[in-house]
Amino acid sequence: MLDAIRAVYQKYGFLPVETPAIELAEVLLAKGGGETEQEVYRFTKGDKEYALHYDLTVPLARYVAEHENDLTFPFRRYQMQKVWRAERAQKGRFREFYQCDADIIGSESMGHDAELVALIVDVMSALKLGSYTVRISNRKLLTGFLTSIGLSAKTSEILHVIDKLEKIGAEEITQMLKDYGCGNDDAAQILDFVSMTGSSTQIIDQLEGLNIDNEAFKTGLSDVKELTTQVNALKVDEKFYTIDLRIVRGLDYYTGTVYETVMNDYPEFGSVLSGGRYDNLAEYYTKTHLPGVGVSVGLSRLFAMTLEAGLVQDSAQPVQVFIANFGTDARNWALQVATTLRSADISTQVDLDGDKFAKQFKYADRLGVPYTIVIGDKEVADKQVVLKDMQSGDQTSLSLEEVVVKLKK
Amino acid sequence: MLDAIRAVYQKYGFLPVETPAIELAEVLLAKGGGETEQEVYRFTKGDKEYALHYDLTVPLARYVAEHENDLTFPFRRYQMQKVWRAERAQKGRFREFYQCDADIIGSESMGHDAELVALIVDVMSALKLGSYTVRISNRKLLTGFLTSIGLSAKTSEILHVIDKLEKIGAEEITQMLKDYGCGNDDAAQILDFVSMTGSSTQIIDQLEGLNIDNEAFKTGLSDVKELTTQVNALKVDEKFYTIDLRIVRGLDYYTGTVYETVMNDYPEFGSVLSGGRYDNLAEYYTKTHLPGVGVSVGLSRLFAMTLEAGLVQDSAQPVQVFIANFGTDARNWALQVATTLRSADISTQVDLDGDKFAKQFKYADRLGVPYTIVIGDKEVADKQVVLKDMQSGDQTSLSLEEVVVKLKK
Repeated sequence: MLDAIRAVYQKYGFLPVETPAIELAEVLLAKGGGETEQEVYRFTKGDKEYALHYDLTVPLARYVAEHENDLTFPFRRYQMQKVWRAERAQKGRFREFYQCDADIIGSESMGHDAELVALIVDVMSALKLGSYTVRISNRKLLTGFLTSIGLSAKTSEILHVIDKLEKIGAEEITQMLKDYGCGNDDAAQILDFVSMTGSSTQIIDQLEGLNIDNEAFKTGLSDVKELTTQVNALKVDEKFYTIDLRIVRGLDYYTGTVYETVMNDYPEFGSVLSGGRYDNLAEYYTKTHLPGVGVSVGLSRLFAMTLEAGLVQDSAQPVQVFIANFGTDARNWALQVATTLRSADISTQVDLDGDKFAKQFKYADRLGVPYTIVIGDKEVADKQVVLKDMQSGDQTSLSLEEVVVKLKK
Repeated sequence: MLDAIRAVYQKYGFLPVETPAIELAEVLLAKGGGETEQEVYRFTKGDKEYALHYDLTVPLARYVAEHENDLTFPFRRYQMQKVWRAERAQKGRFREFYQCDADIIGSESMGHDAELVALIVDVMSALKLGSYTVRISNRKLLTGFLTSIGLSAKTSEILHVIDKLEKIGAEEITQMLKDYGCGNDDAAQILDFVSMTGSSTQIIDQLEGLNIDNEAFKTGLSDVKELTTQVNALKVDEKFYTIDLRIVRGLDYYTGTVYETVMNDYPEFGSVLSGGRYDNLAEYYTKTHLPGVGVSVGLSRLFAMTLEAGLVQDSAQPVQVFIANFGTDARNWALQVATTLRSADISTQVDLDGDKFAKQFKYADRLGVPYTIVIGDKEVADKQVVLKDMQSGDQTSLSLEEVVVKLKK
């Protein structure tokens, strides 16, 4: 999965960055406060306080600020590392887990937001986990709409409520909105707004039809239009994405485009690939204004969930060939065969313990190899090998050249 | 470098294992004592004391003991992870660094030790760092020899002195041996013994000629003979390795074969790929006797040294193509071209900011791309692209199919 994601990130021109797992606590926690702070692993060594990074965004901000003068903006970086959070242990939540982030720093152009849609589609396709939908929104649409109906003061609370809509349903959401002081009519209007459905063209038409005279809304609308135009130019099939105004993302720092990705047959997994646009990445480390847009895969969680659902295997690719052999001459020929196979990039393991053939076959079985090569005295004399297909049980006598050709296929 | 090493480990049938960076301190430090303990990052979270792993051998021991009943022995695993040590910061020493280990657990057969010689040669060749020599010894030879001359009680001290021979020279070593109570004659004999030179056959002949009647020595000699026989069967060219009795490795837990690898033009780098055979991997975690043999690359240090020597580049592979474009129609065609190139696994970046061509070219230059595609109104009308070779400056008009073929080459 790491390899598949890495290959897509690279195809889009993202460069690999790796930052230290341990940084000074004052750097990682410069922003301060928040729930996260309780979950950070911190410790003192000598006279300094350190912390283990708990995400890859804060280290990116520190990195970009530090290397501001050497980087070429817009700067595309990907970063795939473990991060640590002392969360309460529960199913699918890990204290040590992989995040795979891709971010574009230093541009406000919607072209980048559009490319990330194509990238998400390529990542999901490369992971081969079944059908999925990328759900896209722009926070400015909802915030502009709320301002237009006089609720701008409650924007943050309402966004957090909407974020829960799919989990808890319209009725409870209405109650929560009322608890925050929205009237019956307000709540209904908000629910109508975020529940808009249709193709991206249809949703854009409905949004235009609202004739809302508010700057944020108008910017959001023109951004979404530009994004979808460029996503079309990138030849992304609309069956893979939808505009969905219920998507707000919980994180406060998103300010424009937001993405979530759901696996259509496993909605209970929630979003498996998310992200969005932020106004200013590195405000705690530099005065330079650095807008950006990025996506992140919480890979350990995704792996655990898809493993449990039987969509991926937890076994490593087994070695391709095991070479059973008995006796000194057979061993020598086996080693030469192994070197030839390995030179042809065929992963190979040889019995080196001189066990009886029966024990060697049992070992090969447990390894799960697709092929076993058997070498006895006859094969040594003929400079041949017997190749056994472990699935069919078929055995063939082959020359060294023939076995290489066959296994390469 | 990580990819090159991983590919070789996999070819030899090693399976990837990754263990948590954080383990309970009592587990990681079960062995206790030693210099290492001071260098371990430890911290308390809740009511538990944790530590960051400081090598990959202790976690392997814990892992093998825990999964003893599920693993197939001999068990080949590779592990490439960061480890942490709070060492005093100095050139080429890092507090957070990559180790790339490959170990074979559960067999005493010299066949495994021989395969690791072939593996080291393949790793060094894959890294393309220039000529190198794998230096092989077996600790039993020297310990047996020392016993035969009545110095068995001082074995550990003498081994530590010999380990320094190349750094500080024969004269000082003689003095150090004398300080440990060796006579003039003893010191001379020890130096003669470890300074033996010649081909592996010649060294084995010299060792046999000593007619030493000591079990350890005889086992060491027969092990070295078996190892070299099988290394030959693996078709490893002797120009890549030598038997060198000066090699003892500092670590006390090696008991048989020991390996070091030096870069011939950079002896000052010391050993860049080392390892050896140990009697019992997991004695602190299980009663099962688990002999093994393994090698390790200290990759961060190797990278830093070879980078400084100009043998490797620190720049990531840049994106292959940058697509310059101007105007809405050109952008649309550029995005379609990008999708086609990416589908053909060609990494591609597009100008998405609508900058002037001059600024786009400057950006492409800074990215270091080998090719730039230029799209203006003419290219849109003709459904073509202009491909510019950034090195030669040559420009060619090509169809989309042609540019894919050309760039794939």
